[in-house]
Amino acid sequence: MSYSEFLGQMGTVNDLLSSASLLSWDARTMMPSGAVEVRGQQIATLMTLARTTLLSDETLRLLEKAERSTRDLAEDSAERRALEQTRYAIEMHKRIPAALQAERVAVREVSRAAWAKARAEDRFEDFAPYLEKVVNIARQVADAIGYEAHPYDALLSLFEPGETVVSLNKLFGRLREAMLPVLRAIQQKPQLRWDFLERDYPEQQQRDFGLQMAEVFGYDLRRGRLDTTIHPFEISFTREDVRITTRYKRNYLPASLFGTLHEAGHALYEQGVDPAYTRTPLATDMPGMYAVGGVSYGAHESQSRLWENHIGRSKAFWDLHYPALKAHFPDQLSDIDVSAFHRAVNRVEPGLIRVEADELTYDFHIIFRTEIERDLIDGSLKVKDLPERWNAEVKKDLGLDVPNNRLGVLQDTHWSTGQIGTFCNYTIGNVMAAQLYKTAVTVDSNIEPALSEGNYAPLRHWLQQEIYQHGRRFSRDELLVKSTGRTLDPEPYIEYLTGKYTSLYELGALKP
Amino acid sequence: MSYSEFLGQMGTVNDLLSSASLLSWDARTMMPSGAVEVRGQQIATLMTLARTTLLSDETLRLLEKAERSTRDLAEDSAERRALEQTRYAIEMHKRIPAALQAERVAVREVSRAAWAKARAEDRFEDFAPYLEKVVNIARQVADAIGYEAHPYDALLSLFEPGETVVSLNKLFGRLREAMLPVLRAIQQKPQLRWDFLERDYPEQQQRDFGLQMAEVFGYDLRRGRLDTTIHPFEISFTREDVRITTRYKRNYLPASLFGTLHEAGHALYEQGVDPAYTRTPLATDMPGMYAVGGVSYGAHESQSRLWENHIGRSKAFWDLHYPALKAHFPDQLSDIDVSAFHRAVNRVEPGLIRVEADELTYDFHIIFRTEIERDLIDGSLKVKDLPERWNAEVKKDLGLDVPNNRLGVLQDTHWSTGQIGTFCNYTIGNVMAAQLYKTAVTVDSNIEPALSEGNYAPLRHWLQQEIYQHGRRFSRDELLVKSTGRTLDPEPYIEYLTGKYTSLYELGALKP
Repeated sequence: MSYSEFLGQMGTVNDLLSSASLLSWDARTMMPSGAVEVRGQQIATLMTLARTTLLSDETLRLLEKAERSTRDLAEDSAERRALEQTRYAIEMHKRIPAALQAERVAVREVSRAAWAKARAEDRFEDFAPYLEKVVNIARQVADAIGYEAHPYDALLSLFEPGETVVSLNKLFGRLREAMLPVLRAIQQKPQLRWDFLERDYPEQQQRDFGLQMAEVFGYDLRRGRLDTTIHPFEISFTREDVRITTRYKRNYLPASLFGTLHEAGHALYEQGVDPAYTRTPLATDMPGMYAVGGVSYGAHESQSRLWENHIGRSKAFWDLHYPALKAHFPDQLSDIDVSAFHRAVNRVEPGLIRVEADELTYDFHIIFRTEIERDLIDGSLKVKDLPERWNAEVKKDLGLDVPNNRLGVLQDTHWSTGQIGTFCNYTIGNVMAAQLYKTAVTVDSNIEPALSEGNYAPLRHWLQQEIYQHGRRFSRDELLVKSTGRTLDPEPYIEYLTGKYTSLYELGALKP
Repeated sequence: MSYSEFLGQMGTVNDLLSSASLLSWDARTMMPSGAVEVRGQQIATLMTLARTTLLSDETLRLLEKAERSTRDLAEDSAERRALEQTRYAIEMHKRIPAALQAERVAVREVSRAAWAKARAEDRFEDFAPYLEKVVNIARQVADAIGYEAHPYDALLSLFEPGETVVSLNKLFGRLREAMLPVLRAIQQKPQLRWDFLERDYPEQQQRDFGLQMAEVFGYDLRRGRLDTTIHPFEISFTREDVRITTRYKRNYLPASLFGTLHEAGHALYEQGVDPAYTRTPLATDMPGMYAVGGVSYGAHESQSRLWENHIGRSKAFWDLHYPALKAHFPDQLSDIDVSAFHRAVNRVEPGLIRVEADELTYDFHIIFRTEIERDLIDGSLKVKDLPERWNAEVKKDLGLDVPNNRLGVLQDTHWSTGQIGTFCNYTIGNVMAAQLYKTAVTVDSNIEPALSEGNYAPLRHWLQQEIYQHGRRFSRDELLVKSTGRTLDPEPYIEYLTGKYTSLYELGALKP
């Protein structure tokens, strides 16, 4: 009874956050352009009320009462974990002073606008003063949250609880050490053919095929929908309403194709959360509650990467579904067989733009961004020196010259909106995806044969049992230990990439 | 300063209500079906918080402070009117006990479901017990609000402030007296040809033409959009985001065509509100604040009817735009000239279904529904006797036999959701539209010549000045007196209908 009273209060918080999410989805898919300003005020009002409700005396009273009444339950029971996460969220929100939070929100708006203008005009110097403010605020946030070794650790805790400068340094070091030789070896080989991916692919057929594949994976359209946007995303307003978005490039098929599969992977996670967690602190997607120490952004990314890459870029997948793709694009793909298509969508080619990167080079983009963030936060890198550092990093691993800042340091929106500490999630998602996938096909010998017959239910079932159903109940490493027997481990990912590219590019033995 | 503090507080209320409206729009246009239940909870949370905020001590404190500081402003200044409306809204919300309000909401949900099922199965007796509850609650609401002469007056005050059983009786009596002879005269004449309206009209072209005409009227798509729904509506989340919806019948062109023009008329009103009123109590569309004694539902309806009927069904309009319609449907309309088309969309034919009624018979549907509501509320009509009464009313004026309750008393959703007291708004909208239109073309002699050239700006400008810009600042009758010199007056409407049908059906002199 005490616990259900507590859930009633958290239901209000959850409804406010979910409503704010819907306003945000609408702003990015449906809203007429003239409404931007007032929509910002509406979202701010909902977020403020959610915060006020969370931090109210009433919530605290109900929380304490529920804590007393659940004292005898297991430490990792859903009830105790929901209470623990709420307490942690309150603590985190209280640590950040209201004035700092207000400044953070205010700066974000002007900074994003300044970044968009600076990027359009290729004028980093116009954005620099705003970025200095953003970095300065992020430092104050780090101080307010607190940390032991490095201020960046405090920011990491908001997105990827448990990771630190030290742990990431070790992880990234191992990845770079293992992946650079693969990249260098590939660069000695002739490039795989992929010109046909740039033929004319009408949007409607791209949409139809992508959505068909999302449904084949198990994405439930009675509880979801697919729309068009500029920067694709998945968003949920409870497990009963989990929406995905994509963007179409008429002359580049992979953009929407793998984008849709990626977002569908995120969506399978949200749609699979235990129905009992609806409107509770254990529902996974709680914007504005990010300080809750539940499942990490990287864990969420692991599900998008798993379905996009381990399934969507596999030979088994295309052996099954390439005929359907050809049926959607009979003229465009008439001269291309399935092997050529599979090679093309897996080709490796260092490029300047992160969001266009292949599987092998993607993590290099992440690693140097994370290191740059760390150095900005501890002051060892000055904003004014950022372009020079960026360009040197791109040269070092990817071997490319950055011709201008639009294609360099100004390409990502993250920093302009104060998102510092979240690039690492992408790589952690890649690592975790490989670790989970390897375990799944090992522990359940039915999974791989089923995949080669186009039956995705056994894999989905394993993920449902091990990951999806739990929502935010367990931490990322708890989930990993329970399902794979170990915490985050880069070796399955390295093994996956090395094996894949050795075969695709006929690399032979690699120098360690 | 006190006043702007007050506006800050009301901005929060407005944001919550606008967010609830967006959730509602989404539920009716975009939402996957599985999300119905949780969406209901989310909307309920937002509405509850809006009510709590409105009725809080803080709102009262700010209201009183702002009232003191604006004491020297004119009684009809925007400031004083916003304060007055807020006080009235608080008063109304306080009069309805929380328990009654909760029961009202709870009954609404089950009652609507019961109605939908009863309608599908043509079983009025299954719906009757729910309708009895609804009527009983409406009576309690009327008692809580208070009234002088008749309990129905209290319900009318929620939708059409100022109207009473007595005033409506007078208005409806005059309309029936004037319009029945027109209807009887038409029924002696051969029917106008309209079979071609039921040809095959593909949806996309219907949408394109309808939206093009909405834009021609002045609907601004940078601050709006058109979507598809089951029961069309206009909804706004501030003047910067005013959306319309329509439905397409492939084999009946007028449904979406006039539906879109109708909703565009509502939208012009919302888009024209003074920008200074954004997020204040003077913004027109404030769901859940209906008890505010500002502009009435009928006043809003006057704008949809004005654009739909006085413009959209006029010969001048079709002389200009029929070629564009034919360009969208070259095969379907190849053998039909503009006069035939204009006559077809204005034909009169008594029917069983209100939403399909023509301009002349529509009000008969409204009049008997309003009288039935009145009698249900004062107890002189029992729910069990409703079908018999309904069928007798349809027979009396429209001369039709009702073959079953699906085509009779079960056709409208209003009563199932507790909306009692709002049917009269449609007829008041018709009356007010004619009164405004006649005044507009009389006082500004440029309007009619401009209309015949397809220039809608002078008419829109007059409406903007007299109606739109004021939002909820003035009452319906204040607006009417300021713009037309008199309160609601049925004579221009009677004159309009009589003139129109005399010409279309070549009626000659009518017996009074």
